[in-house]
Amino acid sequence: MEENWNDIDQFTKSSIKEAGSKIIDSFDEVLKIQTKSNVNDLVTNMDKQIEKYFVEKIKDHYPTHRVLGEEGFGDQVEDTAGTVWIIDPIDGTMNFVHQQRNFAISIGIFHEGVGMLGYIYDVVADELYHARKGQGAYLNEERLSQLGEVPVEEAILSINATWLVPNKKVNHEQFASLVRRVRGTRSYGSAAIELAYIAAGRLDGYLTMRLSPWDFAGGKVLIEEVGGTITDLKGNDLSLVENSPVFAGNPAVHSEVLDKYLKH
Amino acid sequence: MEENWNDIDQFTKSSIKEAGSKIIDSFDEVLKIQTKSNVNDLVTNMDKQIEKYFVEKIKDHYPTHRVLGEEGFGDQVEDTAGTVWIIDPIDGTMNFVHQQRNFAISIGIFHEGVGMLGYIYDVVADELYHARKGQGAYLNEERLSQLGEVPVEEAILSINATWLVPNKKVNHEQFASLVRRVRGTRSYGSAAIELAYIAAGRLDGYLTMRLSPWDFAGGKVLIEEVGGTITDLKGNDLSLVENSPVFAGNPAVHSEVLDKYLKH
Repeated sequence: MEENWNDIDQFTKSSIKEAGSKIIDSFDEVLKIQTKSNVNDLVTNMDKQIEKYFVEKIKDHYPTHRVLGEEGFGDQVEDTAGTVWIIDPIDGTMNFVHQQRNFAISIGIFHEGVGMLGYIYDVVADELYHARKGQGAYLNEERLSQLGEVPVEEAILSINATWLVPNKKVNHEQFASLVRRVRGTRSYGSAAIELAYIAAGRLDGYLTMRLSPWDFAGGKVLIEEVGGTITDLKGNDLSLVENSPVFAGNPAVHSEVLDKYLKH
Repeated sequence: MEENWNDIDQFTKSSIKEAGSKIIDSFDEVLKIQTKSNVNDLVTNMDKQIEKYFVEKIKDHYPTHRVLGEEGFGDQVEDTAGTVWIIDPIDGTMNFVHQQRNFAISIGIFHEGVGMLGYIYDVVADELYHARKGQGAYLNEERLSQLGEVPVEEAILSINATWLVPNKKVNHEQFASLVRRVRGTRSYGSAAIELAYIAAGRLDGYLTMRLSPWDFAGGKVLIEEVGGTITDLKGNDLSLVENSPVFAGNPAVHSEVLDKYLKH
């Protein structure tokens, strides 16, 4: 079936903006409940409410599409046939609860496994990143440049401190010499925002050990559209239906870091 | 001499806003020069230009005050007698160059060594934090709450990956169990923004190994005004005229982390 990608793009953008408003409107409520009961319940409620909003709207407009979402209101998606939406209603839940900022809505839309549209909306900063395959990536309607070459010595790498102390997922020692070599390191606590920052050239690399497809689906479309690279830690393509460690970056940084620090 | 703190406060706020506009206006120029010549030269130029602006304005309005600034346009300040301004025109220079965001103007004003006024301006987010001794701390004129108790297990700690790999400043291994115990870690690359986040309750602790007085002077006034604690790694008061490692935080987090992780 031929999809009308223009139509889907307009529909998604306006849905994301509306969802963003719902989240902002919830802040007073969040703060109220945070002080008197279980914080994690409320977050789950907001996460669920926003995902439900997306799933219902998508099913209404595009009944043949399938939806894979973090909170499970969508479909059981185990393959990438047809048109599949991959949605994280609130990426960076800890920031949402603790900071009421630095979280994002992330959506990737795939057709027969190919990323067609990608969106990351940093709600509080009001920065909407979007990309359409072959037609460029944009930040609030301003076109993002293709990523230029950045030497590893001048790169800013996003890596959480968790991966630099002994942990269950990975041998932390392999990262030490990389951390010392780059110009600086950062960590923002939202995979979607970190991937959007890669696409915008604000970060040059992002390394993390455990993401789900909804954490990286939107970012993958965005990053590939500006010539960036996103793979697992061995350089393999990411599966859209499985969890994975993720390494995204500027192509020059990605290639050198993969060869010199990750592959062996 | 009795100072008119109201007058100084109004003067400082309007000067900071004006300096912020100058920095924003420079972005096109920054980007232009970044692509064709030495990035670090330009940054130094902007840092210098903004500090010069502050020093000249302060000397003009308050000729008896002394100014300690990162770029050296102020005075040789080796003690804290009288009224002393401690200024960082652009804190987070790497972010300024690489991201054109996540940097701040930081100003602390001290009288006989006592912090009277503190300012941190996150220029691009347009968030101006200010505090006046005994009269509260504010974010864009909204009063910040006193910091409540946060258990270490629920704390978000800002610590850069640099301090978790073998380095020259500190034994990185002492931080590993702390990093594993807290709820999450972040790193934003601007001490001023990290200290402002502590004051706003967005972070609960911030640990770093090498700051200069201009990096923490504004934040110190802000944090103390909301009941937070800021010391060196042994719990000692920070000197206003010497570099130091810094540990700032929510009082409960600060006290427990100091006792259990830093003192020994």
